[in-house]
Amino acid sequence: MENLKAKGYGATGSILSSLKPMAFERTPPKEDEVLIDVLYCGVCHSDLHQVKNDWGNTIYPCVPGHEVVGKVVQVGSAVSKYKVGDVVGVGCMIDSCGHCNPCTDGEENYCEGPVSWTATYNGYMKPDGSGFNTFGGYSDKIVVKESFVLSIPDALDIKSAAPILCAGVTTYSPLKHWGIKAGSKVGVAGVGGLGHMAIKLAKAMGAEVTAITRDEEKRSDAIRFGASDVLVSTDKEAIAKKELSLDFILITIPDEFEVNAYVNLLKKDGVLVTVGLLAPYAKALNNMEVAFHRRSVAGSLIGSIAETQEVLDFCAEHGIAPDTEMIRIQDINDAYDKMKDKEVHYRYVIDMQSLKEEEIS
Amino acid sequence: MENLKAKGYGATGSILSSLKPMAFERTPPKEDEVLIDVLYCGVCHSDLHQVKNDWGNTIYPCVPGHEVVGKVVQVGSAVSKYKVGDVVGVGCMIDSCGHCNPCTDGEENYCEGPVSWTATYNGYMKPDGSGFNTFGGYSDKIVVKESFVLSIPDALDIKSAAPILCAGVTTYSPLKHWGIKAGSKVGVAGVGGLGHMAIKLAKAMGAEVTAITRDEEKRSDAIRFGASDVLVSTDKEAIAKKELSLDFILITIPDEFEVNAYVNLLKKDGVLVTVGLLAPYAKALNNMEVAFHRRSVAGSLIGSIAETQEVLDFCAEHGIAPDTEMIRIQDINDAYDKMKDKEVHYRYVIDMQSLKEEEIS
Repeated sequence: MENLKAKGYGATGSILSSLKPMAFERTPPKEDEVLIDVLYCGVCHSDLHQVKNDWGNTIYPCVPGHEVVGKVVQVGSAVSKYKVGDVVGVGCMIDSCGHCNPCTDGEENYCEGPVSWTATYNGYMKPDGSGFNTFGGYSDKIVVKESFVLSIPDALDIKSAAPILCAGVTTYSPLKHWGIKAGSKVGVAGVGGLGHMAIKLAKAMGAEVTAITRDEEKRSDAIRFGASDVLVSTDKEAIAKKELSLDFILITIPDEFEVNAYVNLLKKDGVLVTVGLLAPYAKALNNMEVAFHRRSVAGSLIGSIAETQEVLDFCAEHGIAPDTEMIRIQDINDAYDKMKDKEVHYRYVIDMQSLKEEEIS
Repeated sequence: MENLKAKGYGATGSILSSLKPMAFERTPPKEDEVLIDVLYCGVCHSDLHQVKNDWGNTIYPCVPGHEVVGKVVQVGSAVSKYKVGDVVGVGCMIDSCGHCNPCTDGEENYCEGPVSWTATYNGYMKPDGSGFNTFGGYSDKIVVKESFVLSIPDALDIKSAAPILCAGVTTYSPLKHWGIKAGSKVGVAGVGGLGHMAIKLAKAMGAEVTAITRDEEKRSDAIRFGASDVLVSTDKEAIAKKELSLDFILITIPDEFEVNAYVNLLKKDGVLVTVGLLAPYAKALNNMEVAFHRRSVAGSLIGSIAETQEVLDFCAEHGIAPDTEMIRIQDINDAYDKMKDKEVHYRYVIDMQSLKEEEIS
């Protein structure tokens, strides 16, 4: 079968990190795969990190996008879960080894296969480490194995649902894993794309949420998302008053930060989980503060496919939607600049119709 | 009532950190207290840290000793648990606020009272922060509230039991808290006073124990204590082979160390607990390695009074005894030098009879 002609926006190098229109090909759907017409794609802070090669692992060209909402336009012969016309989603992963302990436990996001899970973009095409670079959702079409495709519940607005596929599940998974429930005292540090979802989700789970932000300006938004208290991280006095007050802190700050100040906010047996940072903390963790109250410092990576479906359903049930601003693909470089300057409220979503109008060859 | 004349060995300053004989006074037992004739006292690495003011909080004079085994010689009018002649123990704490959540939950070691728990030495006399410096077990007698006194089971050899009161409970408490059981894959880093007890205790709980040490020479001892595998920390190849293999790592290294190499040994959801270090790690924790396998880095501080009794009973039941070398109090400075040079196998215990023979005034 002939390859499918696709178009998208991608970066060709870290110096030339602005995104440009490009044409490429996709293999047509195999028997267990579906072809998706991309309608909307969320813009994640990871896209920016990856395009700029901040993690040193970017393969160019790089076509980002792992918060994909679209419509099924073709299905392979063995596909049973989806049919043409279904509104579906694709998150950060499109495959995993399927054989390791985490995969067989349904936690593909912790796949220990030869190259871990297959990323929706900037990944190997096959989980054995062979194949080529995967291209993400900043494109008109994408082909994904049905077991990695999510169902978008009817109750969700498809224009704003995309960020649930990464920002939503990345914060939902640790909240669920560490047993957040009615009455839990939860801190959410960083009120951005992930953080604003974390506040909404924790609040819907019944937690009492304290938002922690550098920006006094975000106070009213944080309260609107569901926080009952807001700490400005530069206000040392307010921070000191909150020592030993939280059961759980979810840190969504995407850049390096000093962890010890947050550790002190935890109660005995409290747990701090960082999801935004894939690098060392800014300073060494002080075990004195950790050990004296048997605290834990942990990390969490996205969430499983099952959890991704769960958080979509949870958002539908609780009327939760990400706060989004719709942009055209032609505005993507400007959007990245605004993200760097923390001007986004709170997630950009690309209307992919704008790409379809464009001639790329 | 007149104060009791006591004698001991203590330090008068951090520069003059060698221990010298000294005379001091103890208040006679109040109604809920017992007077103990000290028979044996273990020598903990903390004693060395405290005498040298490594934590910046030493009050001089400093009379160390928080692994005390002795005989009850007098009891207050309200004491019901002990009688004259009982063989008893005193560990790291002699009081706590009694009112905070951890105290009412029976976890006095995490007391959140005004000055935390009262340390057996170098502590405030009262948990409200008043009173004077407490003097520890390097002395002929000690007066302790009965609720902080432990019963030494008959089956334990009183000459070697003292280290269970600190080294034993400090390693038992996290092993128990994090649910170590038959089949658990446990790493113990640092094969010294704490580490050798951790290996024995984890083995008796049914775990498969990997010892991790800098010293190839400790291999045979580690195996004798119950380890089924020994890793030498400088052998990068052997370490790399053990990646993702352990459910739990207990780190007993008393000085700053680089934590990331140990984090990599943990399985998904694995937990690393540091008990030896009350300071920052040598390098910043890398959240990439933590988050990719949802690992946790935690700390634990000694153990509760109930857990101290539990570990004494557990050692009696399982025939576990610390490996000790008996010294005289007059040899204490030499013993500290040997501890610094890692020459102790594995815990010095002072035969306090040697102090009684000495004239101090």
